[in-house]
Amino acid sequence: MRAVDIIIKKRDGFELTKEEIQFFIEGFTNGTIDTYQASALTMAVYFRGMTDLEATYLTESILHSGDVLDLSAIKGIKVDKHSTGGVGDKTSLVVGPLVASLGIKFAKMSGRGLGHTGGTLDKLEAIPGYDINMSEENFIKQVNKIGIALVGQTGELAPADKKLYALRDVTGTVESIPLIASSIMSKKLASGADAICLDVKVGSGAFMKNVEDATKLATLMVNIGKNCGKDMTAILTNMDEPLGLAVGNSLEVVEAIDTLNGKGPKDFTELCLEVAAHLVLAAKLVNTIEEAKKLLQKQIDNKEGLNTLAKLVEAQGGDSSYIYSPEKFKAAKYITEVVAQEDGYVSHIDALAIGNAAMMLGAGRSKIGDSIDHSVGIVLAKKVNDKVCKGDILATLHSNKADVEETKKLLRSAYQISKTLVDSKLILKIIK
Amino acid sequence: MRAVDIIIKKRDGFELTKEEIQFFIEGFTNGTIDTYQASALTMAVYFRGMTDLEATYLTESILHSGDVLDLSAIKGIKVDKHSTGGVGDKTSLVVGPLVASLGIKFAKMSGRGLGHTGGTLDKLEAIPGYDINMSEENFIKQVNKIGIALVGQTGELAPADKKLYALRDVTGTVESIPLIASSIMSKKLASGADAICLDVKVGSGAFMKNVEDATKLATLMVNIGKNCGKDMTAILTNMDEPLGLAVGNSLEVVEAIDTLNGKGPKDFTELCLEVAAHLVLAAKLVNTIEEAKKLLQKQIDNKEGLNTLAKLVEAQGGDSSYIYSPEKFKAAKYITEVVAQEDGYVSHIDALAIGNAAMMLGAGRSKIGDSIDHSVGIVLAKKVNDKVCKGDILATLHSNKADVEETKKLLRSAYQISKTLVDSKLILKIIK
Repeated sequence: MRAVDIIIKKRDGFELTKEEIQFFIEGFTNGTIDTYQASALTMAVYFRGMTDLEATYLTESILHSGDVLDLSAIKGIKVDKHSTGGVGDKTSLVVGPLVASLGIKFAKMSGRGLGHTGGTLDKLEAIPGYDINMSEENFIKQVNKIGIALVGQTGELAPADKKLYALRDVTGTVESIPLIASSIMSKKLASGADAICLDVKVGSGAFMKNVEDATKLATLMVNIGKNCGKDMTAILTNMDEPLGLAVGNSLEVVEAIDTLNGKGPKDFTELCLEVAAHLVLAAKLVNTIEEAKKLLQKQIDNKEGLNTLAKLVEAQGGDSSYIYSPEKFKAAKYITEVVAQEDGYVSHIDALAIGNAAMMLGAGRSKIGDSIDHSVGIVLAKKVNDKVCKGDILATLHSNKADVEETKKLLRSAYQISKTLVDSKLILKIIK
Repeated sequence: MRAVDIIIKKRDGFELTKEEIQFFIEGFTNGTIDTYQASALTMAVYFRGMTDLEATYLTESILHSGDVLDLSAIKGIKVDKHSTGGVGDKTSLVVGPLVASLGIKFAKMSGRGLGHTGGTLDKLEAIPGYDINMSEENFIKQVNKIGIALVGQTGELAPADKKLYALRDVTGTVESIPLIASSIMSKKLASGADAICLDVKVGSGAFMKNVEDATKLATLMVNIGKNCGKDMTAILTNMDEPLGLAVGNSLEVVEAIDTLNGKGPKDFTELCLEVAAHLVLAAKLVNTIEEAKKLLQKQIDNKEGLNTLAKLVEAQGGDSSYIYSPEKFKAAKYITEVVAQEDGYVSHIDALAIGNAAMMLGAGRSKIGDSIDHSVGIVLAKKVNDKVCKGDILATLHSNKADVEETKKLLRSAYQISKTLVDSKLILKIIK
């Protein structure tokens, strides 16, 4: 087999075999196939696409380039969730405790990565003492004991993905749906869950700008997962505004706590219940989504979700008193209000701009190794379709520096006010 | 400027600027742009194509990556020709002496490369003593003195082309018309001629399999040349059979001599006159192609073309007596006949198979450094639309080994015999 023949076959629109894809990814990982051949193949894939089967083989090849977690020692069904990355997304902090409180095993490993407002790991580290590092053995032990663990990656999951992504990033093939799908799914499948719920963000603040592309990506990921024997759901959600009100690490943890107390923002609560319900359904605790949502609502009402979050924090070395007294989280020094300059309704909140604003305050990383200030961030006061009058507070900035003029400007420009209400819903589509 | 942005711009179908193309080729040549970025860009070009202007900028950037011959010290118009590579193509050996005999300067540098039957340089080296090596200074002196020089490359013409071609070869982007066009034209333009006639081969034995693709390639090369201020002609010629009758180095030199004596094969003579006529027209010696052909025929009839070939050979250290007594060329030891096994008309002669058969006999190189046996080759006895009866000789093999069974088989399979005549013409199209 020769790499160039595989490139030409894909370039000419033919379907690659399992053996050809394996040969290429193995060669690329161990260096016997050159990066310039890999970049030519990925560009050909960009133009020609991949069938579901090809994308499955690609996912499996990337997956088997490294360690694959063996969760068979965990009793019962193991579930996981993944979001394609949204501003204000703290869903795992609510969904995990909720489903775990019902006896479903939520065993989640996250990578750190870059982001406007840190990832799940950064949010958890806003809780004093929380340690994201854990051996695989202890990870399995903890999930068996309390039903949940939220940790950083152990071992080397899908190293080919890391290498391939770095190459795609500098050769113009990031925006390829089969390559995105296999990148996400290889890491998800490497973490060993039986059922996975994917949250695919759509809109100006997301990687998928429209429902059509998001549907393609979600459908492909669902099919890859099914081809690998997993129970799959994908939810397409609107990212034409940030999720919930809080953007920034400890601010988001507090919002997750509020939500587990039944006092979360409407949109964020809706999404958490939807995602969790599909996992409850996959675990066969109930027969319908409606029943699943009722069951989950009960776990909010009786505080079992909140208690499970506290157990998680305690198990991982954190101070669980913060969960019951979120006012203990260290506040930022300065609170600055951004007010409306006209009357009307909020028609759009540029999530990307909000994310960038949070990063300017120190809530995220622009490069690997940057430190994060857990206390800073943004709290939105108005969301899409809220009525505003001139002078109303749109949002507050939580910062540790006094001068936030630039950030204020960016924030103000992120808000669009119009004279009429707009069509807007959070959950756009469910793909099973 | 960033390489990845240039890749993405091309990937998305936008026209690259001169500055972007220069930046990329310069970076690729000096190593500041990585090969994996170059292979991604060439794959994007494969799918998106290039405008005439982009291809011109690419050609110029490749051209300026190395030495550019300055032929300004040569008086009068300088002409050159190029063929995209055909089996049995010895056109330069006839066209050069013919136009030079009319006072037009034919200053040609050739690369060596691989090929079924050697290139022009290998054919010339079949003449005892002929030296293809010459300094640029002597090259110019010789052209000024006798009107012609046929030498190997001095200096480093278009090194970016060499590097880019090697990369394309292993990354599946050889078959891209703008990349082929800029590769050919960068080298042609680096050799400094004012008027260029291109012979673009079409058919099963050629790189361009159909007239449509060949027209695209020829038109693009003509436009690139014109954009660079050159007088351009491209001739599309049929490669559904080898050109002329002789395939193999000294056999082809003898055929060129025969042609300059007015006794060449019909198709080969026709092509030589056509190519040469366009160069004569470019030199403004006459006003029409018909007048040019008449003038050239005169140079055959009065032996001035032949005399010029003899002068060329002598000037480059060769034994010019061979030109007047071609029977002096060392013959191969064994002559083997291949005969027809049925009655009918020749409908097709697979030029590629004939080339491969010649290479099996030792007439060409399969890898750099292989030595060539100048005396071996194939002489066709029948061409397309010739009537054959069972037992008639189709071709003779000239070899220095007794066992040529495999080659005979290959040769026999190259001939197709049918019951009826086929449509066939040599010159398919002229693009100016």
